[in-house]
Amino acid sequence: MTMLNRLEQIIAERRTASPDTSYVAKLNHRGLPVMAQKLGEEAVETVIAALSGERKDVISESADLLFHLLVLLAAKDISLDDVMAELERREGTSGIAEKAARTENTLGEA
Amino acid sequence: MTMLNRLEQIIAERRTASPDTSYVAKLNHRGLPVMAQKLGEEAVETVIAALSGERKDVISESADLLFHLLVLLAAKDISLDDVMAELERREGTSGIAEKAARTENTLGEA
Amino acid sequence: MTMLNRLEQIIAERRTASPDTSYVAKLNHRGLPVMAQKLGEEAVETVIAALSGERKDVISESADLLFHLLVLLAAKDISLDDVMAELERREGTSGIAEKAARTENTLGEA
Amino acid sequence: MTMLNRLEQIIAERRTASPDTSYVAKLNHRGLPVMAQKLGEEAVETVIAALSGERKDVISESADLLFHLLVLLAAKDISLDDVMAELERREGTSGIAEKAARTENTLGEA
Repeated sequence: MTMLNRLEQIIAERRTASPDTSYVAKLNHRGLPVMAQKLGEEAVETVIAALSGERKDVISESADLLFHLLVLLAAKDISLDDVMAELERREGTSGIAEKAARTENTLGEA
Repeated sequence: MTMLNRLEQIIAERRTASPDTSYVAKLNHRGLPVMAQKLGEEAVETVIAALSGERKDVISESADLLFHLLVLLAAKDISLDDVMAELERREGTSGIAEKAARTENTLGEA
Repeated sequence: MTMLNRLEQIIAERRTASPDTSYVAKLNHRGLPVMAQKLGEEAVETVIAALSGERKDVISESADLLFHLLVLLAAKDISLDDVMAELERREGTSGIAEKAARTENTLGEA
Repeated sequence: MTMLNRLEQIIAERRTASPDTSYVAKLNHRGLPVMAQKLGEEAVETVIAALSGERKDVISESADLLFHLLVLLAAKDISLDDVMAELERREGTSGIAEKAARTENTLGEA
């Protein structure tokens, strides 16, 4: 079992704990907008670390980002495997080139 | 080998490909600020999908986010294992509770 | 009339134009999530420009950010004056110090 | 004098105050990455408020966003007038349509 799968399991277990003792339970108690906000903020911090921080900051912020992504996915009832299957699907069909094509055609991305 | 490790390997291989045929090479050619920007944008899209999109959008944007995180980490010469070790370290010492404490004490997070 | 007020007026006029000829109409046609996404993306670009870009990039991205903020506010039926009144209120009561206090007490901010 | 110009002036005055008593001085003391981070975080909060919050939340977060944009611009020695001149220039030449064209052609935006 990989670290991410184990983290996913820990998050699943803590979601129903007391918000007083568990950070995961607290985030779930506060609701989806707060969980989404945390993901956005950790991404901003990862961006900042990548451009202005040290190597250890990038590692630390990336860990925070992954953690909060898993919290958000759990709240949406999406498993890590669902996301991995999507990555696998892309690799299988048109590969990562698909992304490049999509990027240049979609205003949603722009 | 997990999907993320395989994706990490693919990204490592494509970094030195031609920017004309590889999206990964193109991003690397354009430089760190563009890679960081892509990560930030995919995070914004994941946030939007979580609040307003459908389940499949959240899965798709999360896949994009992970992909661009791996691209950025590779450019910073950081492996997925480095980030996993950091998550493991946290779990091992004070656990995820550490994050909660840190969050409430640090203006850096605020 | 300030430039921002004029821009607000232009945006109000174009909202009902044809999405084929007006960028503002196109954004409104695509809906609130897309307008919110654009705001988020322009903020990411402003962050990147501030850390890695040149002076002219920061100016350009800040202009984009303000433009898309006005587009979003218009879509929410909020005027620039509503936001200015909020800034004025803060200055009048506890001043900008209020923000500092709030920042350190709110997990929402953390 | 508009509220934004007054706020710009207040920020200019406080930049050199003591970080113990002034939030603006504290942010400047902590440096550009922290100011950029705050801008990014307030944008995320504005996005969340626009999609999930109430009208008053959007107003409040937009005020925070404008405040932190002015703090960042001041730190980069860019005046509000510089940004207004850029908005004016766009309106004068190809207008806001310029943005639409640019958006669809630039991977930088994508």
